[in-house]
Amino acid sequence: MAAHRKGILSMNHRSDDFMELMKDTVTLLRKRLLVPVDYEIIFATSATECWEMIAQSVVEKQSIHIHNGAFGEKWFEYTKKLKPDAQSIRFDPNSELDPEQLRFDAGDLICLTQNETSNGTQVDQQIVRAIGKQNPEQLIAVDATSSMAGIALDFGSADLWFASVQKCFGMPAGLAVMICSPRAVARIEKVGERSHYNSLPYVREMMGKYQTNCNPNLLVIYLLIRVLRKLDQL
Amino acid sequence: MAAHRKGILSMNHRSDDFMELMKDTVTLLRKRLLVPVDYEIIFATSATECWEMIAQSVVEKQSIHIHNGAFGEKWFEYTKKLKPDAQSIRFDPNSELDPEQLRFDAGDLICLTQNETSNGTQVDQQIVRAIGKQNPEQLIAVDATSSMAGIALDFGSADLWFASVQKCFGMPAGLAVMICSPRAVARIEKVGERSHYNSLPYVREMMGKYQTNCNPNLLVIYLLIRVLRKLDQL
Repeated sequence: MAAHRKGILSMNHRSDDFMELMKDTVTLLRKRLLVPVDYEIIFATSATECWEMIAQSVVEKQSIHIHNGAFGEKWFEYTKKLKPDAQSIRFDPNSELDPEQLRFDAGDLICLTQNETSNGTQVDQQIVRAIGKQNPEQLIAVDATSSMAGIALDFGSADLWFASVQKCFGMPAGLAVMICSPRAVARIEKVGERSHYNSLPYVREMMGKYQTNCNPNLLVIYLLIRVLRKLDQL
Repeated sequence: MAAHRKGILSMNHRSDDFMELMKDTVTLLRKRLLVPVDYEIIFATSATECWEMIAQSVVEKQSIHIHNGAFGEKWFEYTKKLKPDAQSIRFDPNSELDPEQLRFDAGDLICLTQNETSNGTQVDQQIVRAIGKQNPEQLIAVDATSSMAGIALDFGSADLWFASVQKCFGMPAGLAVMICSPRAVARIEKVGERSHYNSLPYVREMMGKYQTNCNPNLLVIYLLIRVLRKLDQL
């Protein structure tokens, strides 16, 4: 196996070789997914961990979860355990969201599930953008687990995007990609939450050095760069 | 590659096939490492996550960290962020611990690093057992990252053992094994911490069904069972 021949499997995650692999992977990911140059790319272990990291390190007081299925609801429930003011807005899976009716006076983060795996419905990207325009005070976070790398995402329309790699990347599970806008980065630094090994200020610092906050899923990172090399630009 | 041929890479982590893979892996792990039948086996993503899970879900109020190097110290520092009463006892890497001097009136968990990777020192397993005997009120947790699967561990001498697989298992990083005594399980249920996606009561429930709390590192679990099949009993 190529990974074994190249010594990937036993690479030290503080070594120059690892940092080079990470840098190449992030660079290629940015290129293939058309991630804006001022958005940061972070790795986590699963989309579930992304929910947790956002609840810990991005939500100031209240997140608003607009959802119509099992994954969106779970995101709300997981967040509520950490930030009890989290609010849930359920909509009918058979109808489209009307951004006009989604203007919020409260809350500091609006959470959307772009593609709800449990029922196959999508939130159109123009709707994501319109919800953002209606709510300039809040950040917008999008669970894109079943769409990132499958369709071209309009990253500029939201502040936090994340996906685990076992759906459209076509890879084995155990790695997630999170993409943060400059506004999201500013919020992370403002909240300044540093209690956990996966607190975002710390994870950002490590990613800035092309390192990770703990021993990463090396093999899947290596597979990711190989998949990206074969993938056409979206 | 065998994993690909067998459809492992795209296995759904709630499917019967996955649960069977997990059951076989746990059963073989128990056999090869000689884990007592009444100890539970849990998977995590890294030893760092194990530190966090223990701080969250096992420590009631105060952990006592006896350490002589970088990893033991980090474990203390990570725990202190979550449980501020954590206490640190540093000892000389060139001397052996004297259990007679390690009798504690306070604290509910004593944390030891069996093999300190940063300086190559070991805490002899008889010393682990003696510290436990001196402190029947406290649980004993052991970071065995650089020894599990390398030497036979006397699991009965402590309550929590954990290791990531990139050291003695000889595998790529991204998976950790945690082993819990009946006393540890009782403590986890007593503390009843359920705020996080990796809270131990929830992870235990999932493992009881041979499932995981989030999309697992499937490929490395699959490699683990293959490594275990080749490994002689310790």
